[in-house]
Amino acid sequence: MVAPEKPRQYQVIGTRPVRHDGMDKVTGRAEFGADIRREGMLYGAVLRSPHAHARIVSLDASKARALPGVKAVVTAEDFPKPGEGNLDLGEGSANPKWLMDNILASDKALYHGHAIAAVAASDQHVAEDALALIEVEYEVLPAVIDVREAMLDTAPILHEELRTNVRARGVDPAPDKPTNVALHMRLEKGDLDAGFAEADEVIEREFETGMFHQGYLEPQNATAFWSRDGQITVWTSTQGAFSVREQVATICGVPVSHVKVVPMEIGGGFGGKLPIYLEPVAAMLSKMTGRPVKLWMSREAVFQATGPTSATYSRIRLGAKRDGRIVAAQAYLAYEAGAYPGSPVGAGAMCAFAPYNFENQVVDGFDVVVNGPKTAAYRAPGAPASEFAVEATINELAEQLEMDPVELRLLNASEEGTGNAAGAPWPRIGAREVMEAVRSHPHYNSELSGDDVGRGVAMGFWFNGGMETSSSATVNADGSVSLILGSTDIGGTRASLSMQLAETLGIGAFDVKPHVTDTDGVGYTAVTGGSRTTFAGGWAAFELGQQIREQMRARAAQIWEVDLEQVEYGDDGCIRGPDGKEMSFKELAGQLSRSGGMIAVSATIRKNTAGPAYAGHIVDVQVDRETGKTTVLRYTAVQDVGTAIHPAYVEGQIQGGVVQGIGMALNEEYVYSEDGHLLNSSFLDYRMPVANDLPMIETVLVEVPNPGHPYGVRGVGEVPIVPPMAALQQAMYDAIGVRFNEMPMSPRRVLDELLPEE
Amino acid sequence: MVAPEKPRQYQVIGTRPVRHDGMDKVTGRAEFGADIRREGMLYGAVLRSPHAHARIVSLDASKARALPGVKAVVTAEDFPKPGEGNLDLGEGSANPKWLMDNILASDKALYHGHAIAAVAASDQHVAEDALALIEVEYEVLPAVIDVREAMLDTAPILHEELRTNVRARGVDPAPDKPTNVALHMRLEKGDLDAGFAEADEVIEREFETGMFHQGYLEPQNATAFWSRDGQITVWTSTQGAFSVREQVATICGVPVSHVKVVPMEIGGGFGGKLPIYLEPVAAMLSKMTGRPVKLWMSREAVFQATGPTSATYSRIRLGAKRDGRIVAAQAYLAYEAGAYPGSPVGAGAMCAFAPYNFENQVVDGFDVVVNGPKTAAYRAPGAPASEFAVEATINELAEQLEMDPVELRLLNASEEGTGNAAGAPWPRIGAREVMEAVRSHPHYNSELSGDDVGRGVAMGFWFNGGMETSSSATVNADGSVSLILGSTDIGGTRASLSMQLAETLGIGAFDVKPHVTDTDGVGYTAVTGGSRTTFAGGWAAFELGQQIREQMRARAAQIWEVDLEQVEYGDDGCIRGPDGKEMSFKELAGQLSRSGGMIAVSATIRKNTAGPAYAGHIVDVQVDRETGKTTVLRYTAVQDVGTAIHPAYVEGQIQGGVVQGIGMALNEEYVYSEDGHLLNSSFLDYRMPVANDLPMIETVLVEVPNPGHPYGVRGVGEVPIVPPMAALQQAMYDAIGVRFNEMPMSPRRVLDELLPEE
Repeated sequence: MVAPEKPRQYQVIGTRPVRHDGMDKVTGRAEFGADIRREGMLYGAVLRSPHAHARIVSLDASKARALPGVKAVVTAEDFPKPGEGNLDLGEGSANPKWLMDNILASDKALYHGHAIAAVAASDQHVAEDALALIEVEYEVLPAVIDVREAMLDTAPILHEELRTNVRARGVDPAPDKPTNVALHMRLEKGDLDAGFAEADEVIEREFETGMFHQGYLEPQNATAFWSRDGQITVWTSTQGAFSVREQVATICGVPVSHVKVVPMEIGGGFGGKLPIYLEPVAAMLSKMTGRPVKLWMSREAVFQATGPTSATYSRIRLGAKRDGRIVAAQAYLAYEAGAYPGSPVGAGAMCAFAPYNFENQVVDGFDVVVNGPKTAAYRAPGAPASEFAVEATINELAEQLEMDPVELRLLNASEEGTGNAAGAPWPRIGAREVMEAVRSHPHYNSELSGDDVGRGVAMGFWFNGGMETSSSATVNADGSVSLILGSTDIGGTRASLSMQLAETLGIGAFDVKPHVTDTDGVGYTAVTGGSRTTFAGGWAAFELGQQIREQMRARAAQIWEVDLEQVEYGDDGCIRGPDGKEMSFKELAGQLSRSGGMIAVSATIRKNTAGPAYAGHIVDVQVDRETGKTTVLRYTAVQDVGTAIHPAYVEGQIQGGVVQGIGMALNEEYVYSEDGHLLNSSFLDYRMPVANDLPMIETVLVEVPNPGHPYGVRGVGEVPIVPPMAALQQAMYDAIGVRFNEMPMSPRRVLDELLPEE
Repeated sequence: MVAPEKPRQYQVIGTRPVRHDGMDKVTGRAEFGADIRREGMLYGAVLRSPHAHARIVSLDASKARALPGVKAVVTAEDFPKPGEGNLDLGEGSANPKWLMDNILASDKALYHGHAIAAVAASDQHVAEDALALIEVEYEVLPAVIDVREAMLDTAPILHEELRTNVRARGVDPAPDKPTNVALHMRLEKGDLDAGFAEADEVIEREFETGMFHQGYLEPQNATAFWSRDGQITVWTSTQGAFSVREQVATICGVPVSHVKVVPMEIGGGFGGKLPIYLEPVAAMLSKMTGRPVKLWMSREAVFQATGPTSATYSRIRLGAKRDGRIVAAQAYLAYEAGAYPGSPVGAGAMCAFAPYNFENQVVDGFDVVVNGPKTAAYRAPGAPASEFAVEATINELAEQLEMDPVELRLLNASEEGTGNAAGAPWPRIGAREVMEAVRSHPHYNSELSGDDVGRGVAMGFWFNGGMETSSSATVNADGSVSLILGSTDIGGTRASLSMQLAETLGIGAFDVKPHVTDTDGVGYTAVTGGSRTTFAGGWAAFELGQQIREQMRARAAQIWEVDLEQVEYGDDGCIRGPDGKEMSFKELAGQLSRSGGMIAVSATIRKNTAGPAYAGHIVDVQVDRETGKTTVLRYTAVQDVGTAIHPAYVEGQIQGGVVQGIGMALNEEYVYSEDGHLLNSSFLDYRMPVANDLPMIETVLVEVPNPGHPYGVRGVGEVPIVPPMAALQQAMYDAIGVRFNEMPMSPRRVLDELLPEE
């Protein structure tokens, strides 16, 4: 572990206690969405479109309704229309019609697997049988599933009402005609033309990345009960209970306070469990039947209709001086949104050049609808694709300049006070420290041996999020503190937040008892995502701790009958007064009940900025020329993690992110037929890397504390997924001399390059 | 409704909205303890003693354990011994050995139905079958079931280790020998002998009251899961989740924070769901089996082993001047505790003379163990028996003095600044207002007609409780406020607390969404009982409201860009700034998310004093000389309720309390055989009054706001059970000329008096 600056010594932070929820998880006692059973519960099933693009001419559910055991059939018609009693979702939120249409299609099916109707029945088999009795007449339309084809004037149009929203200075407003391009945005800084004019070397390359699914183990599920007094309860596996509450309220046309969301344990999300799919359907079926209704997806439905990240096309042009200074940078980024607008192209654009201090830069981003499932956030959403393109170009530029790719990056690296086109100058960041750690790492300085082996490096950036977190805490008589959380725990946040409260109070990690509660039990808390939870939740825990310290001091002063000023709360959790008076936290906690009562506090944190994260990865591969299979021989991920609250979980996050990035680079792929049918919707055919495909992922934690957080937390979960594609692309080139500018570099693609054409 | 002083006009307080939880309750959706089902759950059954007093010589469960389907058998031996890792329960709490022994007898069975062992099995029938296979050898001992017999030197001794705790000035310490008298306490004021010397009339009478069961509809139940990491979760119907938490932790030998109690909806408690019975047994069976275990009681077990109130013997001696001024008052109160010490004799002693301003008084109280179920709190615990004795004596004194019994009471009534022997002078109270309302009530001034009809009046007092309540609240974007409660709702407190928060904020009653949560979800909150919840919880709601008002003001100032001092929060829920700026609560709530985040607050209230309650009841009866049956013709209950937050629920509380008091007076009775077997453990044989036995109970709400509460709340649930026995006793005397000094005045007792001896 490299620690270039670590201003404080901590008692709890930096240690590696087991998870507070570990026993429940390993013994199978943790309750996931599938475990929910309610009295009188019905089981639902969803009818999905067999077509990638089709008008729904008619739908007749009368035969399905007549099947014994069927209690209700729901279609989009049963929901309030957008504007009917719906809440304002707020700026930046999805168009309610699109949100609704993705839940149940109203007029058109826009992708293979698009939900059309749903049934509630006395058991699952009856519900599934009933689907076949729903008669839908479709008018099949031509489908478009590629982002560049969708941008052509000749492309089939998904939404007749869609017009391009142009947010690019100097670009004309879009013509008033149907298009699949929902957004054209531009980020600019400096003078691009002047930059290129100054350049000694100019390089321009094109790249493509595929759709990649988040690949969580637990399929989507939702159980809902709509009480006759209008209160809706939803049990679901989600990354954001409050976000589900808002969306369900919007779609069902009720105020948010009429919806209670009980977040179950989550079997993976990675961004894919931010949107909702089944929840309003279960709620509406419950309203129709007066009974709780449970819905869950098959793996096939998960692949067809949830996730994935955007497939992308991008073009990168860089201009450099002979000495390696990059003086001009241009990016063209076209991101698939799936069936409805809303790809992460904005984040992709903001991240593209963020590792570097480029004076002159322009990034154009396009959000494009295609006949595929609506894309969802996926770990550093938008960043892997754009940064892959930039990093791959930089690696090639380094070769042209005959420079070491790490030296080239260090020469151009972002640092405190510089900035990209998107916003304010960076605060203290660790970009340079990370790349210096890469340069000096034994892996980078080791010799490669063997046939068809190669090494690559790449850099990565992610903002990290802040946003809003509420939390409360109560002191128990046994000296423990209950910590009440609205953040669902997707990757160890019970531990990382408890540890920050424990640190603040000077008590042990297990003296804090974290409890994830429902939306009625805690203040508004934004989603668990964006690598924001340990940052914002930790800040809230710090505030709770400060309040408890103050109240404990006051109570000690009262018990000792001394002035408040005479009492100090030590960082060792010891409360000290005059004349050697002293009580441990536990001793004082035991006296609270007899001295005025227990202590309960609450805090809300809202932060619009967090501490950006940088990563530098090194990878060695070996390519099998006969099978096209690439073996990852060694992988080292260096990352500025800010303060590592729980280093083992930080390492786990990095390892998980790297593995997902390796999957994108080498294996994972959606196979669509020409007419837009997904052909590989199973984990057998959609091949994610598993433990025995991989070496141990080595991690190097560089700790540059975030000055904008009481404990220096940055957020760690997302940036590790960014560098793998470019690092592996470079390693493949190093190994077999081929630059794959299209991801994934699957055995098929490798063989296509290596084998003589027949 | 009489309102002698009502300083404020309220918007929400005093209105009668339906319950927030009404729909769930009437549609059967509310979840009670019986509704809990957990994956892999086992069912338990409890073996109970067939003897009222017996030494357990041996217990062999091997045959039961061998029965297919039986997973575990637990006895007291399986629990940690008192002192082994147990927590200090704090002053005034029960002796842990007695607490444990009442859960599962260790050495002796002390009452018919005493739990001896418990079984967990794959289904309920197997568990019950297994009970018969547990071989217990008992050495049957003589039983004592009457309080006066138990006090005799010759009585069988229940606890060899028990010695009388003497808390009476001038009384010698008890001899160091076994006794059934656990406590002799005394309250004194003035000079009793001088008082009696001064008296013109002296009257002394003896009284007896029986055991009365709380008679809740829902039997006790508990489901528990003891996780392998030592965390215990308990789902149970209880009046106090935190109290269950403490007791389970004590008995199971774990810290309180290792126990989470999830309070289910409650089907009645009336004090009887404060103690625990099944919870630790279910927990230990769960620890043994690794599975959740559910236990519940039959009605027979409820009668044999839970509740009841103390049977009592008392002696009252009053000395009065000819003009009616009572100058000396003495009470001797002996209360059965059941099998373990802890009757409510202390409260009975403090209440006995509390309606009156007696200068010279002595109250002696005795807590006596007998071979019956351990008594539990029951609505104004201890007060009905002692006040019955005093009130009956006062009614008889009035006759001797030839005074109207209401005038006699008014002449001697407590008022602000006077006090009884137990504590500080009364704050502003409504004793006089209540009795004046009785005197002027049409019922009291109406003519009686018919054969064997009579009228009685009596007065009643209860302290009301304060204690500790924590609560939190969050503002939702739709303008509603979620109110998070640790108080279980036994009688409408979701409504009464929501209304006080709504009043504070100037929003509607239904704009507050109350949520009762578990012990991990809110700060420490004492039991729902003592008529404390609307008082203390309402105060907490008021504090939450004040905090929200301040934060809303600050937010409006920020949005309007004006100084905080320029913003006012109106009692109409409107936030006003300079230049006519104005926002409703709902409008501002909708903007919180975009102006710094939602608002979450928490508050803890702890009050050692509350506002005492006084009641005056009038009843007319008719006695059937052939059957002995007494019919209540008319009943009017006048009560100082402080501010009536929700008058309909206040009336309901009064009506319920009166009906339970009528049951004590006329019907309810435990029938024991001589050797201590309970013979009538069913609702058929233990006859509680039901709706068609009774007239509509008329209520008169006198509102003397409690100056010690932001909204003048006193607490209303308990005092109405106090006057019925004495009022009915007087009415019976008025009707048939017999003074029944033993309760209940059942048809059998009436006939015994009316029929010539055979």
